[in-house]
Amino acid sequence: MTGGECLLRTLVASGVDVCFMNPGTSEMHFVAALDRVPEMRGVLCLFEGVCSGAADGYGRMARKPAATLLHLGPGLANGLANFHNARKARTPIVSLVGQHSTRHLAYDAPLTSDIEAFARTVSARTVQLESAESMGATAAEVISEARRYPGRIVSLIIPADFSWSESGPIGVAAIPPTRNCFSTKVEFGEGAGFILGGQTLTGKGLEFAARLAAGGYRVFADRNAARVESGRGRFQPQRIVYFPGPAQAQLFGLKDLVLVEAKAPVSFFGYPNEASYLAPADCRVHTLAGVEEDGIGALAALIESLGLPEASFPDLEPAELPSADGPLTLDSIGAAIAALLPDGAIICDEMVSSGPPVLAQLTTAKQFDYLPVTGGSIGQGMPVGVGAAIACPNRKVVVLEGDGSGMYTPQSLWTMAREGLDVVTVIFANRRYLILDIEMRRTGATGFGSKSNAMVDIARPNLDFVKLSESMGVPATRSLTLADFIEQFSIAMREPGPRLIEVVLPDSSR
Amino acid sequence: MTGGECLLRTLVASGVDVCFMNPGTSEMHFVAALDRVPEMRGVLCLFEGVCSGAADGYGRMARKPAATLLHLGPGLANGLANFHNARKARTPIVSLVGQHSTRHLAYDAPLTSDIEAFARTVSARTVQLESAESMGATAAEVISEARRYPGRIVSLIIPADFSWSESGPIGVAAIPPTRNCFSTKVEFGEGAGFILGGQTLTGKGLEFAARLAAGGYRVFADRNAARVESGRGRFQPQRIVYFPGPAQAQLFGLKDLVLVEAKAPVSFFGYPNEASYLAPADCRVHTLAGVEEDGIGALAALIESLGLPEASFPDLEPAELPSADGPLTLDSIGAAIAALLPDGAIICDEMVSSGPPVLAQLTTAKQFDYLPVTGGSIGQGMPVGVGAAIACPNRKVVVLEGDGSGMYTPQSLWTMAREGLDVVTVIFANRRYLILDIEMRRTGATGFGSKSNAMVDIARPNLDFVKLSESMGVPATRSLTLADFIEQFSIAMREPGPRLIEVVLPDSSR
Repeated sequence: MTGGECLLRTLVASGVDVCFMNPGTSEMHFVAALDRVPEMRGVLCLFEGVCSGAADGYGRMARKPAATLLHLGPGLANGLANFHNARKARTPIVSLVGQHSTRHLAYDAPLTSDIEAFARTVSARTVQLESAESMGATAAEVISEARRYPGRIVSLIIPADFSWSESGPIGVAAIPPTRNCFSTKVEFGEGAGFILGGQTLTGKGLEFAARLAAGGYRVFADRNAARVESGRGRFQPQRIVYFPGPAQAQLFGLKDLVLVEAKAPVSFFGYPNEASYLAPADCRVHTLAGVEEDGIGALAALIESLGLPEASFPDLEPAELPSADGPLTLDSIGAAIAALLPDGAIICDEMVSSGPPVLAQLTTAKQFDYLPVTGGSIGQGMPVGVGAAIACPNRKVVVLEGDGSGMYTPQSLWTMAREGLDVVTVIFANRRYLILDIEMRRTGATGFGSKSNAMVDIARPNLDFVKLSESMGVPATRSLTLADFIEQFSIAMREPGPRLIEVVLPDSSR
Repeated sequence: MTGGECLLRTLVASGVDVCFMNPGTSEMHFVAALDRVPEMRGVLCLFEGVCSGAADGYGRMARKPAATLLHLGPGLANGLANFHNARKARTPIVSLVGQHSTRHLAYDAPLTSDIEAFARTVSARTVQLESAESMGATAAEVISEARRYPGRIVSLIIPADFSWSESGPIGVAAIPPTRNCFSTKVEFGEGAGFILGGQTLTGKGLEFAARLAAGGYRVFADRNAARVESGRGRFQPQRIVYFPGPAQAQLFGLKDLVLVEAKAPVSFFGYPNEASYLAPADCRVHTLAGVEEDGIGALAALIESLGLPEASFPDLEPAELPSADGPLTLDSIGAAIAALLPDGAIICDEMVSSGPPVLAQLTTAKQFDYLPVTGGSIGQGMPVGVGAAIACPNRKVVVLEGDGSGMYTPQSLWTMAREGLDVVTVIFANRRYLILDIEMRRTGATGFGSKSNAMVDIARPNLDFVKLSESMGVPATRSLTLADFIEQFSIAMREPGPRLIEVVLPDSSR
């Protein structure tokens, strides 16, 4: 058995059976072994940022790691931006990176670089494989580490000769136990606030959140949580908003803030005359469960100690489809999505400036999983959609994407087409880096003219997302009116397979 | 004057007047100041890998640095792959990276990452700006360092508050002197070989190379030199070939090998039973000029000490246009390019597996600059074309690109359209990662089946480069026959402005 085959068998034996890859010469033995290990699904991506983002989406939904296979330092480099997001999401990922053969490394060949330095920027741990013999044991250790609750990126750097040489035995990764924290003593007064993050925004966590809210506590959702179970019939905690002023208003008056798999909220960016830290200055902050501890277990113990009963909350009226002859606005698009979204959909959000009005409408949609931006690195929307669709093949995935952000990893569309993924991408085309119009003014900059405007203007030429999508095999349409959008989105929700809808926003809605 | 404006004025005062950028919130004061510093040209790219690759192309042609402006760690991460190539090309680049404001850095905001760790992977030096007051002085120091012969990547990390605060005076960078090495004593016998790299493959360097060849020495070109002046009427040294066996054959029998701005040749990858080091084992290796020394000056001194006279060499017959009714092959495409290429064109080569037959034809083309792959990181072809066109607005730029490699940074097309660049991109569509078919077998892998084949097969679905190009505003056509190609390439050579030609290679020519 070659090292490459041993690695594949170790992954599969340890429950890792999807690999998003963009391989090169040094990874060829791993690729060749795919035909001998039928349990592994290799998913080819045409750019590495698609691989890393897809592994993030997969891990958030499957709650176990996918592997990525990238080629040397520069191949890894192309994946780092989406690994950054996955790191902030605490997604489990096994990042495999090929290296030159150990003998070849002595020479400064063109592709030689410090792979460990690249890997360490995003990895909880970076391991350089030391022999073909140890492939199985080392890979199992790495997989085990990636599965430390709630998840980590662990990188394994694999010299080519250890893939082509005879290996030792395959390994099987142990799954580390979740750390409990029932012993945590948290004391807070009436009307305390909670910020729930991590996995507490799913399943039992939301039930506990409802009981806290019914008991008079204020419950918020961490803005950058990896996954939020959402929609009608679920308790929907307020999400901390983006800009610091409104976020401070949300938290105003709190004397106690209890963190559950979350950190104390800070603003996304710093501004000249605004706060970075968002809780009131005199608010006491308590950690019920750290970001690597079992928040749901901690909430269960707390609820019991507080004696909070089961909570019921009024069900919301189902979303109504807006009249097709109304105007095309972010509100009306959001309302249409809310009305048409099938039960159990997965929404990947990278709408950036278009987000708030659309998301506000989705509270009355059927139940869905919401996968937000976690690390702020642009270009995650479509790749996360790829991974979510592979993790959950029987659920409709909807990627809500800005036109600016949609241009960082558009190669995702090709993988959607090739794998026949049930992903619908909606592009919100306002033809500007609109968020920067807002941010530019917030940072106190002045004296804008045509040259600075040009740096946030992505018209001239306009991007044609229909052609872009078709160029990679994904059927696409353009919505210029609300009627167009309702018709096109209805079809997309009804019929399986990848599609793209470019919604050209009228000036008035930007 | 804000720090942002001071930085812009320091760049311009130091001869850096082009900035390839993909800015975000933390860079807004730099962007706003563009309207107050008209000498600076800001070029917006929709993906950071376009910025870094364009700066590489610009620096190779202009022989002075462009700046790049990227947003925080993840924005920089997206630029690293092409910075890797630029590092191997020894291209001067001033890499500016925005950072959170110093106060905001204390909080672990979503976009917080270790920017220095990202930057160090590709930078000769990484500087964290320490105050708004020192902006001008520090920036001048960084620019000066970037211009150390032949060129370096130097990164300056700029906290947002140092851009928005009042700065000190602007700086002006000194240009460091080129290091001479006339004192180098190199002793070699008759029939010695020379490997010329760096800037010795341009201008006087090629004249000296011809004199060495006429004097009985064997002269080779470093495979990964940044820029080679090529075409008819110039001395064209043999380029070291890609695979180790043929490269060893090229160097067979050498007793002395003299390096001039080059390193001893090594193979691109290591293979189980092949050499990494390519010179004969008993060949003595001498360094006439190191890769950061003045090779042309060293050659001049050597030629004089050897008493080698001016050399003339027979001019080659001009390339002839192949018959349009002939078959579409890599040879015939290369012949057509050779015949139609205008004098003074710039060729950016990322053809990968399609390269050798096409390049073989170009020896009889009119004079052109050849910009090859330097670091092997895929995705440099089109971005380098963007930068070369901005450095040399009166020259035709031709990007020769594989279909696989063309999918890493296709966003380049949008910048070509926006800036009206005179760049013609030819896509060689063989619809496979064809180089990996070859490499897979060379690494000794066996047992290929449908699953491993799928990882090198980029058909299913086929990429439509015509639509892809049109989606970003670049007119495009498809060549299915040699007649198509001759007609389309003729028009492209005659008329200015960006264009793309997708050549669909018949199976027989792959």
